[in-house]
Amino acid sequence: MKIAVLGGDGFVGWPTCLHLSAQGHEVHIVDNLSRRWIDTELGVQSLTPMDSIQERTRIWHQETGHRIRFHLIDIARDYDVFKHWLIEHRPDAVIHFAEQRAAPYSMKSDRHKNYTVNNNVNATHNLLNALVETDIDAHLVHLGTMGVYGYSTIGAAIPEGYLPVGIETLSGETVSQDILYPANPGSIYHMTKCLDQLLFQFYAKNDGLRITDLHQGIVWGTHTDQTRRHAQLINRFDYDGDYGTVLNRFLIQAAIGYPLTVHGTGGQTRAFIHIQDSVRCIEIALKNGPSRGDKVKIFNQMTETHRVRDLAEMIAKMTGSEIAYLPNPRKEAPENELIVKNEQFLALGLNPTTLAEGLLSEVVDVAKKFAYRVDRSRVPAVSAWTKDIAPTLNRDPEGKKLKSVS
Amino acid sequence: MKIAVLGGDGFVGWPTCLHLSAQGHEVHIVDNLSRRWIDTELGVQSLTPMDSIQERTRIWHQETGHRIRFHLIDIARDYDVFKHWLIEHRPDAVIHFAEQRAAPYSMKSDRHKNYTVNNNVNATHNLLNALVETDIDAHLVHLGTMGVYGYSTIGAAIPEGYLPVGIETLSGETVSQDILYPANPGSIYHMTKCLDQLLFQFYAKNDGLRITDLHQGIVWGTHTDQTRRHAQLINRFDYDGDYGTVLNRFLIQAAIGYPLTVHGTGGQTRAFIHIQDSVRCIEIALKNGPSRGDKVKIFNQMTETHRVRDLAEMIAKMTGSEIAYLPNPRKEAPENELIVKNEQFLALGLNPTTLAEGLLSEVVDVAKKFAYRVDRSRVPAVSAWTKDIAPTLNRDPEGKKLKSVS
Ligand SMILES: NC(=O)c1ccc[n+]([C@@H]2O[C@H](COP(=O)([O-])OP(=O)(O)OC[C@H]3O[C@@H](n4cnc5c(N)ncnc54)[C@H](O)[C@@H]3O)[C@@H](O)[C@H]2O)c1
Ligand SMILES: NC(=O)c1ccc[n+]([C@@H]2O[C@H](COP(=O)([O-])OP(=O)(O)OC[C@H]3O[C@@H](n4cnc5c(N)ncnc54)[C@H](O)[C@@H]3O)[C@@H](O)[C@H]2O)c1
Repeated sequence: MKIAVLGGDGFVGWPTCLHLSAQGHEVHIVDNLSRRWIDTELGVQSLTPMDSIQERTRIWHQETGHRIRFHLIDIARDYDVFKHWLIEHRPDAVIHFAEQRAAPYSMKSDRHKNYTVNNNVNATHNLLNALVETDIDAHLVHLGTMGVYGYSTIGAAIPEGYLPVGIETLSGETVSQDILYPANPGSIYHMTKCLDQLLFQFYAKNDGLRITDLHQGIVWGTHTDQTRRHAQLINRFDYDGDYGTVLNRFLIQAAIGYPLTVHGTGGQTRAFIHIQDSVRCIEIALKNGPSRGDKVKIFNQMTETHRVRDLAEMIAKMTGSEIAYLPNPRKEAPENELIVKNEQFLALGLNPTTLAEGLLSEVVDVAKKFAYRVDRSRVPAVSAWTKDIAPTLNRDPEGKKLKSVS
Repeated sequence: MKIAVLGGDGFVGWPTCLHLSAQGHEVHIVDNLSRRWIDTELGVQSLTPMDSIQERTRIWHQETGHRIRFHLIDIARDYDVFKHWLIEHRPDAVIHFAEQRAAPYSMKSDRHKNYTVNNNVNATHNLLNALVETDIDAHLVHLGTMGVYGYSTIGAAIPEGYLPVGIETLSGETVSQDILYPANPGSIYHMTKCLDQLLFQFYAKNDGLRITDLHQGIVWGTHTDQTRRHAQLINRFDYDGDYGTVLNRFLIQAAIGYPLTVHGTGGQTRAFIHIQDSVRCIEIALKNGPSRGDKVKIFNQMTETHRVRDLAEMIAKMTGSEIAYLPNPRKEAPENELIVKNEQFLALGLNPTTLAEGLLSEVVDVAKKFAYRVDRSRVPAVSAWTKDIAPTLNRDPEGKKLKSVS
């Protein structure tokens, strides 16, 4: 199969490309390398020493004989270039990772809010628009987020995408409609994924596009079977306050002897999935696409849920770290339960890697191994959700005030 | 009150500005005049001879002594310019009309789809973003559309914005949540209004913005008490296949002796409101805004519903025109019932002008009066919703084939 991987230079995109290439698919990465530019903007870098995309694909070819081609295109800004690329390559499937994906980055300033909305809405809409225009019947697999299910804060089990709702008709009977689970996003970033959902719904209905949307939990872990094959195939590992997800930041804090910083009470329950499982889910989703005329197929791509404070305790126990409770930069419910349905992937053969099994290797093989590369001033989360929250944050980079808190 | 009217040069915006100015408010129009540019692009013009915005405001001042100021700003493209304008003027209220509002135009080509998404999403998001950034606690009144209620095709009574939905929590009890009425838009244009809704919901929740969204039906009628005061204050009247709404196109067809072109069976039921009532609703909404921290206030801004074929018959009876049934360029249910709740405006004093009362004056005072200005080749609807539909459309501008159909 010829597969276009939009955003294939990113954290989930890169191991996905290797996984699909190893299976013999013809993989084309389309990426504008904006994520590398954002590293430059923020003055941060991946914990793991990450090569250029050109170098990485060269090594992959040298190690395996497989070719992954790279195409530098901004799919949000260069509609015409991208459309002509599609006409030339006519992929059988398109995997769409190409969005700004950090909630804190999306809330950093008005400029970052605008960038996130623009980049993500246009990336998705340009893609849909171009598929219709070029008459390419490719299966589109998009990475959404668990964050579209905002009402999870009321403690309901989260279905896979759709909620059956009874609507009373004029004749008095109640008709059941499967509606998109009501959106209630918690950040500009998450909101863009809710906008994406409506775009998908429209294009599936109006133009018969075949679309799968994967509502993914927080991805953890660094290595997959393929990235392990050569030091220069290593995946990126973000630990900064904007792009580092909660688990990565705990790992790094543990590795450098900094207290694990829990926001608020740490009662927020989040959903997780290991990078190896994420890559495998994408492979499964690719093979099980909807037919023309079907509604958008939605999977929940996660394997377990944890409260943030429980995660901190798990890592503290493993590493002997302290835990510090800090004000929450996010505007969100302090505590929430979360039960997520993920029967579809389990039924299709997913066999999850659990945190309990995989965490120690992350501590030793990744966080401790590369701890010498950490810039400790970049670990705290400094992007506030509102102007009222901003002054309450402890931005002390050296953690002096922190220590007294813990 | 100091009121910024974004899109104040448009069909609904202009009479709104006059109405509010006549009541003594300080009115500022912010418009990029893109609608006039689109007339140029399409080679069409308003049926009514419409002056420049500078000339119109000059006449208004001459007639009434009131000043309406005009500011040429593209709020979708020039975020910084607009933000600085807000800082300088600090309005008490902002009325947001500034979007590309024609469904057929939004479906014309890939370029038009992209333009509509970009212009509308960015106009709305830039406004919200800038209000937060500048800390201006203005009441934002936005014009939405009845088209956000896509599931109306199943024949349900449409509530004002929210649908109570029972969600089962983990403890087994069912909690009722008022969700945004599930979106199921029928065109790219309508979809952008669904995206707007999510943007509003987020900014009301996260930043406490005070927002009212008015889901408006098709606006008909040309004159209001204020536009009647001087020939050069006249409102625009669109009759072309892209911007002319169904009623305006019937009126023009009747005036030039062309058959009234009904798409499909004409069984589509649509909601309507007279321009004088629309302007009055906006005044009422302005006075009855939500408080900081409230959810978005949503009104249905319409006064009556009609099937398209019944409208055609009403006008045929009045004018002696024939009716021609043509293939529908839209992808939509051929027949739908529609009952819309609009108790809120009625309770606040709206006293509707009915089609039965007002239609004759539109035929005589507007359509017949200005019929000499009609370009008959511009009346047919030529924008197809899908590539499959396009070849089925009868684009014969002279209506020769048409006549044989009727
Ligand atoms: N990492 C997670 O924990 C996680 C969780 C849930 C969902 N997701 C989703 O999965 C997808 C991939 O996430 P990730 O962690 O790999 O993110 P990432 O930032 O590492 O990768 C995204 C890639 O897309 C590229 N990109 C962005 N905008 C582009 C544009 N306009 N044109 C071309 N390329 C563009 C970037 O350069 C980057 O290489 C995202 O859509 C994200 O929202 C990720
Ligand atoms: N006319 C109707 O029947 C109807 C029905 C339902 C809803 N609405 C909504 O009411 C609003 C006004 O409708 P209308 O019929 O007056 O439309 P219109 O096209 O006549 O007016 C819109 C105005 O906004 C301006 N504009 C567009 N993009 C802009 C931008 N980026 N920056 C600054 N100005 C911009 C245009 O130049 C134009 O003057 C629209 O949002 C429309 O969706 C209209």
